[in-house]
This record gives sequence, C-alpha cells and structure tokens, in this order.
Amino acid sequence: MYKYVHGGDVYSLQKIETGIKIVDFSANVNPLGLPAGVKTALRKAVLTCSAYPDPFCRELTTAIAADLSVKAEQIFFGSGAADVLFRLMLALRPRRALIPAPTFADYEKALQTVSCKLDYYNLNPDDDFKIGTTILSHIKQGTDIVVLCNPNNPTGTLTDQATLLAILNRCREVGARLLIDECFLDFLEDEEAYSLKEFLNVNNNLIILKAFTKTYAMAGVRLGYCLSGDEGVVRSLRENGQDWNVSALAQAAGIAAVKEKAYLEKTRLYVKAERKYLEEALRLLGAKTYRPAANYVFFFFAEQPDLDAKLLQEGFLIRDCSNYRNLKKGFYRIAVKTKKQNRLFIRALRKVLK
Amino acid sequence: MYKYVHGGDVYSLQKIETGIKIVDFSANVNPLGLPAGVKTALRKAVLTCSAYPDPFCRELTTAIAADLSVKAEQIFFGSGAADVLFRLMLALRPRRALIPAPTFADYEKALQTVSCKLDYYNLNPDDDFKIGTTILSHIKQGTDIVVLCNPNNPTGTLTDQATLLAILNRCREVGARLLIDECFLDFLEDEEAYSLKEFLNVNNNLIILKAFTKTYAMAGVRLGYCLSGDEGVVRSLRENGQDWNVSALAQAAGIAAVKEKAYLEKTRLYVKAERKYLEEALRLLGAKTYRPAANYVFFFFAEQPDLDAKLLQEGFLIRDCSNYRNLKKGFYRIAVKTKKQNRLFIRALRKVLK
Repeated sequence: MYKYVHGGDVYSLQKIETGIKIVDFSANVNPLGLPAGVKTALRKAVLTCSAYPDPFCRELTTAIAADLSVKAEQIFFGSGAADVLFRLMLALRPRRALIPAPTFADYEKALQTVSCKLDYYNLNPDDDFKIGTTILSHIKQGTDIVVLCNPNNPTGTLTDQATLLAILNRCREVGARLLIDECFLDFLEDEEAYSLKEFLNVNNNLIILKAFTKTYAMAGVRLGYCLSGDEGVVRSLRENGQDWNVSALAQAAGIAAVKEKAYLEKTRLYVKAERKYLEEALRLLGAKTYRPAANYVFFFFAEQPDLDAKLLQEGFLIRDCSNYRNLKKGFYRIAVKTKKQNRLFIRALRKVLK
Repeated sequence: MYKYVHGGDVYSLQKIETGIKIVDFSANVNPLGLPAGVKTALRKAVLTCSAYPDPFCRELTTAIAADLSVKAEQIFFGSGAADVLFRLMLALRPRRALIPAPTFADYEKALQTVSCKLDYYNLNPDDDFKIGTTILSHIKQGTDIVVLCNPNNPTGTLTDQATLLAILNRCREVGARLLIDECFLDFLEDEEAYSLKEFLNVNNNLIILKAFTKTYAMAGVRLGYCLSGDEGVVRSLRENGQDWNVSALAQAAGIAAVKEKAYLEKTRLYVKAERKYLEEALRLLGAKTYRPAANYVFFFFAEQPDLDAKLLQEGFLIRDCSNYRNLKKGFYRIAVKTKKQNRLFIRALRKVLK
C-alpha cells in the first residue's frame, strides 16, 4: 500500500524498528533546524488559520520580490517546490522533455502526469556526473522542456553559469523552456555565481524552482515557489490547480524566513565545514566521493551493496541511490547533519565496515 | 494580476477599504473558530516540522478510518478538499462530465485542467434549485463522471439519499463515476441520512469528497480528503502529484480534530439556530430565501443588484453569486457567523435597504 521512492521516510521505520531511535541522514534539510523567527511566526499564525489563506500570497510575494529583485508577477508559490513542479507540467503541457539521469525522481513523475515523452541525458560517473556542453546536442527540435537541478540531486554536482547559459540559448533556438531547480543553491556561499536568477528578465523561456523546505528546515510546513521570465506561465499556474495551495501557516513562515539572513550565513559556514568533514571521513574509509556542493554528500562503495541496511541496524537511515535511473547498487547519499550526529554516523560507518 | 472567483478574499479588501474592519460573511467556515484541541496540536506540531511530513498520513488515516468505519486503503488526503479535487481529475482523466449549474466553481475548473467536456444540469429557481430524478436522463453513455455537492453550494439545497442512490445506479449503468462533495454535510444534525458513506463498499464507482476546512474552522491549515470505493483510485491519486501534499501541521491538526466530538455537536446546534435566525430575518426584509441546510444561507433580492457593494460600505463582505453559471444579479450567499455578528449584519442590511 505504501510505495515511496524518496529519502526521509522515517515514519515506516519508526514502526518497523521498534526500540531503535533512527537518525535520518536520508533527507536533505538544514541541520540547524527551524529558525527562531520562523518558529515564532508559525505559533502566531495558528491564531489566524480559521480564515482561508490569501490565494495570491501577497505579503509573501512582496517580501520575496524585494529580496530577490524580481517582479511580483514572475513569482508563483506552492505547497513545497514539488507542488509547483507538478502544477508546472499541467500549465506547460510539454510533449517531449529532456532530463539528466540520475536526477531527482519527481521531474520524471511530474512529466508523466501529462504523458510527456522523456529523453535522458546520461551522466557519466567517470566524469563526476558532470552536466557539460555535450547536453546541447540532446536538445532538439521537438524538445519542449529541459529540466535540470543545480547542484544536481543526488550527485551534488554543480553546473557552471556559462554551461547553463549555453543550454538556455540552445533551448531558445529550438523553442524549449529551461526549468532549473535551484532548491539547493542556498547552501552555497557563492550561489550568485551559479544562479540564473539575473537572467530571468531577458529569458522568457527560463523558469527557476526554489524551496523554503531545505534552506530553512521547514519541510513539514510545505513552501516552495518558482520564478518565471514569462509572466504568462504564472497566470497559467493559477488556472491549473486550487486557489488556496499555500496554507496561512506556510505564508507566515515564509515571510519570517526571508528575514533570516544571519541564519542563512551561519548555515553556509556550518554546512561547508561539516560536508568537508563527512567527505574526508568517507574517503578515508574507502568510499569514492563526489565533490559535494550543498548540504549532502554523494558517494560510492563498490563492495558495500547493502551498507544502508547495515547502518540502519546502527540507527542511521541513509539514502540508497540504486533506484535512481542510471545508478547501481553501491551509490549512496547522506545529508549533512549536526556536528555531533555526523561524528556518530562516521563512527557507526567505521564499525559496519570492519 | 489577481483574478479570484470565490468568497473569502478579504485580503484584497483590507488593502482597498482602509480604515474599515471587514467582517467576512462570504466564506463558509465554522463560526465557533478553531477547536481548542486543534489549536494545541498545531502549536505542538511546530516543533516537528523540520522533517518531511509522513507522505502517507498514516496516523491520520488510521484515525479517520476508525472514525468513519472505512478502510485505510479507501482514503486519500490532500491540502484541502480542493487539492484532492484537482488531483482526482488527473487520476481519473474523465473525457465527459456532468455537473449541476449553479454549483461550486472549482469542479468545472478542475475538470478543465484535463480538457474534459462539460455537460450542465440546470437547476431551476422555481423548484428551489433541487437536484431531482430529472438528472437521470442527462447521465448518458459517454458520461465519465458526475460531480454533485450535497448540500449544494451556493444554493444550500439538499438532495435525499434515495435520489442520490438512483443517480449512483444510473452512473454505474453507463460506466460513470459519481463524485459527491459532502464537505458541508458535517453541519447537519442528521448527516447520516444524507451521506453516501455507507454505500462505499458496494459501489466502486463512488467517490466522496470531505474537508476539515469548514467543519473545524481550519481553512488556513488546508486539509481535506476523499473516500473511494475503488482502492485503485487512491493508488492513482498517489501517482498523480507530489508525495508530501499534506503538511505535518495539517496532519497533526486533523488527528486532533477527529476527537472533537463535543465541538461538532455544539456546532450543529449553534449553526442550526443561527441559520434559522438569518433566514427569517432575511425573509422579513423582503428576500426570497432558499431553505438552508448547512452553515450558509442563499437568498435573492430582485431589486438589489448591488447589495454586496452597499454592505461592504458597512463593513460586511457577502458573496455576490451572479458569477455562478445559471445565476443572475440579485443572488447572494452569506455564511452563518457568530450570534453577535449575525445580528450586526442584519442591522446593517436593514439600514442599506431603507
């Protein structure tokens, strides 16, 4: 009855593994937890939630528009980035899409809801799963949309701005849109160097997907959005789903989160140090690691096809990535958690590898 | 930029009508406000919402299954009933639908997202907008789905169980599903006499839509669900959208709401008395009223085509129903609010009618 392909399903395990407290390294949320300002805003918002939420998220839209220097008409909010993703497919109705493999499974799932034909751009492990200019020849007449994730999930690989702009241009040539998921870019200190945000106004075929979920550790609240160079896409998004898809609680949380600049700064430094620790420790223990850019580390253990099961016995849930297209047994992804949790995890890993 | 067809958009007005405190009679939520137990549950849940919500709403599913005596496999939750409604269309892909006119605008909007052809069963004001057996001849070979609302929104008209069962049978004969929206049935003391819940197990073409939104005054939280005789529909619903469409906050609120039996009992008595007050007062002031069954009153004032604008000047937002299919200027809907608000409303109405 309960089929689930993502990380973070600790709910199943809590029932199965009675007695063991599971630490969830499979879901990539900010290890610093909910910012204090967001927590307060959520508690306050409980008092307002008898009324319907603002269907246009006006206060939140104004806050984000000012923060990102984009137009209010270019923003559409959803109940998590995943909500926006599925709704985008209804709004755009692509008939043929190009996505990398491996990447986040929901791009494919969302495209399938509108019976879109899928082409895959296979990423090469020997080239660190890099998205390079070889993708350009895969973007052809008939391609309606290219969906990319930067840094890519689960591999963590970054694509530089020059490559992305070449892809964006190629998309325009063939009449395709580029949907780029920047949900994990907030974890980078130099995110401006990778984001395509500044190119929105001159590229009406560009759509950027963003989430509050991971950055502000509010996955349970559900808030995400997209930015679209083409304001018609935002209007079409409104037509293709319910009017009240963003709860009053999520709107209040988002408005508070935009102000959390110090938290964001702290997050970046913290995550940078901790992912370095995890990457080095994994390498020393014999894993092949792929340079992590966000708040998760992707690695390969050729001789450890059931590392996840062994670690679960120790109380750690990691993401077995073998169900991603173009990956095999031995590929895993872990989130960057707190300093203490990361060290306990490495200790457990050392134990199971013995 | 902000086009909105429903009630409850006080957010626009708060910006336009500066200085006037608007009382919202246009959105039909429980006038008793958020139950205390739900409020507490929401505040507690704030602490859990860094993690992803349970994608299968397992604890909430168990609670509802026990409360309604249905199988867990027959339940699908969404971020409000409207979320479930739009997702149902993706899961079912009807090509031809029959809906009454007037009725809740989102049935049509949701059906249009899958390019469904629409047939209308026009309700007759001279017959109190009743849905009768004359609908049967409109359910034909080629009809894939019939969508009804009981009591109907905005008219408030109830359809009896015998008529509904005849419709359900006729649907089965032609291979159609019956989607019945029972979101407002909780406000009836004798809801069991109207609900089709007990017929779920023997009718796999029956789907019932339900909301927590209105019953528990938690429209800002977003929680609704459907019950389907055909468990395959629930599986298909899971495939046609994001996995985390119900926030951790909404799940906690729902679990707490199921226990609010005394609140529900109090609601029914309160709403019954107040809708009687409103209906009688409206009639005495010259309105044609339609027998209200839920927490709203539908009425017609032939010579008052801009009553809503006049009442807004007095600080009361009511639902001008002239944008519903098959209705004209002069039809209005008001929610049953608190005793005090209802009396202030009638006083304001008396003033503007002078």
